[in-house]
Amino acid sequence: MAYHAPVAQITYILDQIVDFPQLAATDRFAEATPETVTAILTEAGKLATDVIAPVNRAGDLHPARLENGALRSSPGFAEAFRALAEGGWIGLAADPEHGGMGLPQALNMAVNEMTASACLALQLNPLLTQGQIEALEHHGSDALKSLYLPKLNSGEWSGTMNLTEPGAGSDVGALTTKAQRADDGTYRITGQKIFITWGDSDLSANVCHLVLARLPDGAAGTRGISLFMVPKFIPDDAGNPGQPNDLRVVSLEHKLGIHGSPTCVMSFEGAKGWIVGAEHKGMAAMFTMMNCARLGVGVQGVAQAEAALQQATAYAAERVQMGPIIRHPDVRRMLATSRAEIFAARAICLACAVAIDMSRATAEADWAARAAFLTPIAKAHGTDVGTRVADTAVQVHGGMGYIEETGVAQYLRDVRITSIYEGTNGIQAMDLVGRKLADGGTAAMALLDEVLDGAKSAQASQPELAHDVWQAAETLREATQDLLDRDLPERFAGAVPYLAAFSRVLGAHYHLRAATRGGSVPLARVYVTRILPQYAGDLAAARAGLDDLEALDDAALLGQMAG
Amino acid sequence: MAYHAPVAQITYILDQIVDFPQLAATDRFAEATPETVTAILTEAGKLATDVIAPVNRAGDLHPARLENGALRSSPGFAEAFRALAEGGWIGLAADPEHGGMGLPQALNMAVNEMTASACLALQLNPLLTQGQIEALEHHGSDALKSLYLPKLNSGEWSGTMNLTEPGAGSDVGALTTKAQRADDGTYRITGQKIFITWGDSDLSANVCHLVLARLPDGAAGTRGISLFMVPKFIPDDAGNPGQPNDLRVVSLEHKLGIHGSPTCVMSFEGAKGWIVGAEHKGMAAMFTMMNCARLGVGVQGVAQAEAALQQATAYAAERVQMGPIIRHPDVRRMLATSRAEIFAARAICLACAVAIDMSRATAEADWAARAAFLTPIAKAHGTDVGTRVADTAVQVHGGMGYIEETGVAQYLRDVRITSIYEGTNGIQAMDLVGRKLADGGTAAMALLDEVLDGAKSAQASQPELAHDVWQAAETLREATQDLLDRDLPERFAGAVPYLAAFSRVLGAHYHLRAATRGGSVPLARVYVTRILPQYAGDLAAARAGLDDLEALDDAALLGQMAG
Repeated sequence: MAYHAPVAQITYILDQIVDFPQLAATDRFAEATPETVTAILTEAGKLATDVIAPVNRAGDLHPARLENGALRSSPGFAEAFRALAEGGWIGLAADPEHGGMGLPQALNMAVNEMTASACLALQLNPLLTQGQIEALEHHGSDALKSLYLPKLNSGEWSGTMNLTEPGAGSDVGALTTKAQRADDGTYRITGQKIFITWGDSDLSANVCHLVLARLPDGAAGTRGISLFMVPKFIPDDAGNPGQPNDLRVVSLEHKLGIHGSPTCVMSFEGAKGWIVGAEHKGMAAMFTMMNCARLGVGVQGVAQAEAALQQATAYAAERVQMGPIIRHPDVRRMLATSRAEIFAARAICLACAVAIDMSRATAEADWAARAAFLTPIAKAHGTDVGTRVADTAVQVHGGMGYIEETGVAQYLRDVRITSIYEGTNGIQAMDLVGRKLADGGTAAMALLDEVLDGAKSAQASQPELAHDVWQAAETLREATQDLLDRDLPERFAGAVPYLAAFSRVLGAHYHLRAATRGGSVPLARVYVTRILPQYAGDLAAARAGLDDLEALDDAALLGQMAG
Repeated sequence: MAYHAPVAQITYILDQIVDFPQLAATDRFAEATPETVTAILTEAGKLATDVIAPVNRAGDLHPARLENGALRSSPGFAEAFRALAEGGWIGLAADPEHGGMGLPQALNMAVNEMTASACLALQLNPLLTQGQIEALEHHGSDALKSLYLPKLNSGEWSGTMNLTEPGAGSDVGALTTKAQRADDGTYRITGQKIFITWGDSDLSANVCHLVLARLPDGAAGTRGISLFMVPKFIPDDAGNPGQPNDLRVVSLEHKLGIHGSPTCVMSFEGAKGWIVGAEHKGMAAMFTMMNCARLGVGVQGVAQAEAALQQATAYAAERVQMGPIIRHPDVRRMLATSRAEIFAARAICLACAVAIDMSRATAEADWAARAAFLTPIAKAHGTDVGTRVADTAVQVHGGMGYIEETGVAQYLRDVRITSIYEGTNGIQAMDLVGRKLADGGTAAMALLDEVLDGAKSAQASQPELAHDVWQAAETLREATQDLLDRDLPERFAGAVPYLAAFSRVLGAHYHLRAATRGGSVPLARVYVTRILPQYAGDLAAARAGLDDLEALDDAALLGQMAG
């Protein structure tokens, strides 16, 4: 089934649920008027539905491949990418000084959702480029900015992030790629990187790698890492792609999904690089890039859930087994809970984006703290919902769901990576209970206050729903206080279920808000009665501590014991 | 990583958790002594680990294919199948009168688990043959039994089940395949069937299809359906494969997983068939076959979970990121909860098998009712655990999990079908709250009484765990009573979460039993504190009714509404 961009629903969430209109009241985003938003979302929706979605299946069937060391992308990807680039969509939220449109991230993420629904494998390319744009805007020298940003914003060139090495995944500090200072102020980069998304591309004239590497005098661990811009072709004096740099794609991975997105093993062999930010301060710059990408990946989860659920719902409306199966209570339950989950995950992602925008527009620390707290939730929850809904969409199809030609299994295979890359969801959860509770719980409690206030306001019109949300938020507050009293390893043991519970409560909060602001009351009820109640089990697990896990020996984990 | 058959663990569960020893006290299963059990499990474990597991990857990479209309199975499958057949494993639980070994299903299912861990795609072939053996033993004429059973038990011939048609999936009664009476007392079968597992095979000399079809005077719906034996080659007078029958494989499906298992579109073109059971009573015979297969599929879920978790645990022990990741609290949580889930799912499946065996050995209705109640739980829960654990195993691998060469993604792709075939898990849940509660809750309450008694006995030695299990069982009893007071559509709307809650309570019951019988107390604690507590949320959803689902219009389900 064709994907239909849910423009009306996204517009409603921006307007009524996540307070997007407050952005237009700031100087920075004064241009983000309702008219602009509508025009942008409508256009992006058309692009996604009419131009990008049609290439999604070809990406799966005809993966990107290497031909004599050069990448050949999947059929139709070049044309779809060109439409996306030429529409100015890549630089939507970028600085107008260098060719961006300067619009809010919240709007950019709404657009990203639609393009990622249409084709995840292709959309990864502009998403990573957007991350690189953010990193350069914040940490690049003026020379780097002037040279690279206009071309990245226009999609003429594309960007990658090179962190992971065979021995350095979640432990970035273990990396071994070396940087040497050259006489001309540039650097020479040598080492191997793995899992590099779109590490080569025939969609753009140059591929700009941001590479983490260690200078000879860099300390061990993450503190000694620097970030470098290492382009595939070294720009000539006119700023055009010139001599090839000393780097190459060694091989592509054969993956479960996103076949259209080349995942490269990269070899840097004394490649010429330019420092981004200060020496040894590469992690800070990389985090700028990753934060944007993390939210973007959460949005990818929502996007794939949306596309998969649309297909499942259309199938259920057509498939007749003792009446259309969309009327069967169990099928309806699957569709309705999935729809309710998507609403919640989308609202959380867009609320996070609005917080990022408000933090930039106002420079207020509270907004920054809120954005920082919501980012790992948006990423992990959005992608968990992505996998869960895609899995349910397969189930709704019955046996047809398992047949590749049906297409719904591709969503399940494709979306599965989103819980892994840009920091696994376990890493996100540890970030939440570690760094993001390091303020003593201020950001967490501010969010919970908002939820409790919302429940109070809704008490008159939706007393039952409001009561349940209030109760859940109170329990979450207690659990948060309990985690604050524990050491990090204990928190980590409960991190994933804690994040899940927080997501449920926030999701219920936004549904309750919808129920009081012209949204769907039945959908809110589906969420509050069928999805929210798992918070209790989540929080029990969140508070279960570490003792039982440590008491299990490895033989017990392997299941080889007699008892 | 190589799969290691968990012989000690399975033996422990049989002996200490599911009261397998009571079988040896019956006349029918007097031979199922501890020595026999140990010998059988040890041998089967070797077969699975040494002979079958090595072909699993080849089945994925080199799918079964059609060559001029004939099936060519994946490399190595023929040899592995031969070892399995010649070891006498297919007929382990079959009637000795026709070449079976007459051992309990509980032992057979334990063996099936190990072969299904080793290679799901291959194991489907003997599993379906076992189902056919059951159906023939119960419903076949003496002539059919004498001719077919010895060859099915030996694996010389294999069996399939042909239910599904393009317009008749969950609604079997909608089938259109026709049967005509012939003058010689046989029948002519005409129609198309889809999703026929191992619909052709080069592993066996004949393929015996049990086909559902409607006679001209058969009523509409399921009451007018008859069951026929339709062999690929018509047996000659000596009982050897003779003339080819008028049937063929039209095509094979391209599936998400189990590539080594050919999924066939079958065409029956006036094929010669023999009736199994009485005319128009085919569904009863088919249910005999399906019941055995349903439990067998639940066991497949456990099996794939076991194999996937072993690979994840081995990886976590080796992979170093700031120390071996098996020591990281979040990774340990993933491994430990998965291990605890496998223990629970395995115990439920084997308890179901013991109930089937006791029902046959004693002919007591209580045992039959218990087996009937546990079957949909074993199937749906076992396969849900299969997918959940395989998914977690991918996650433990981080980025490596997404790379097909790692092998763990294959488990996720392969196991995903188990929640769909032999009746989707939604169908299982509806069977549970519909037919299996139609006794007014007697079978359900008997199980809950056992759980409550167990909790009482454990109170002294494990007071905290016992308290939690008791509380959950009491809440489940209330919810069961509540469902009994509702009509079927309302029950169906809560069926899946109800089944999930019942599984959790049973799983916790068996863990608590283990904690008091020399099993792992920390593992029981992992289950009771991190997995059991979700029962509350499950039961809230189970009792949420149908109103909100019906209040949602289809536009809301599609997410195209503005509000």
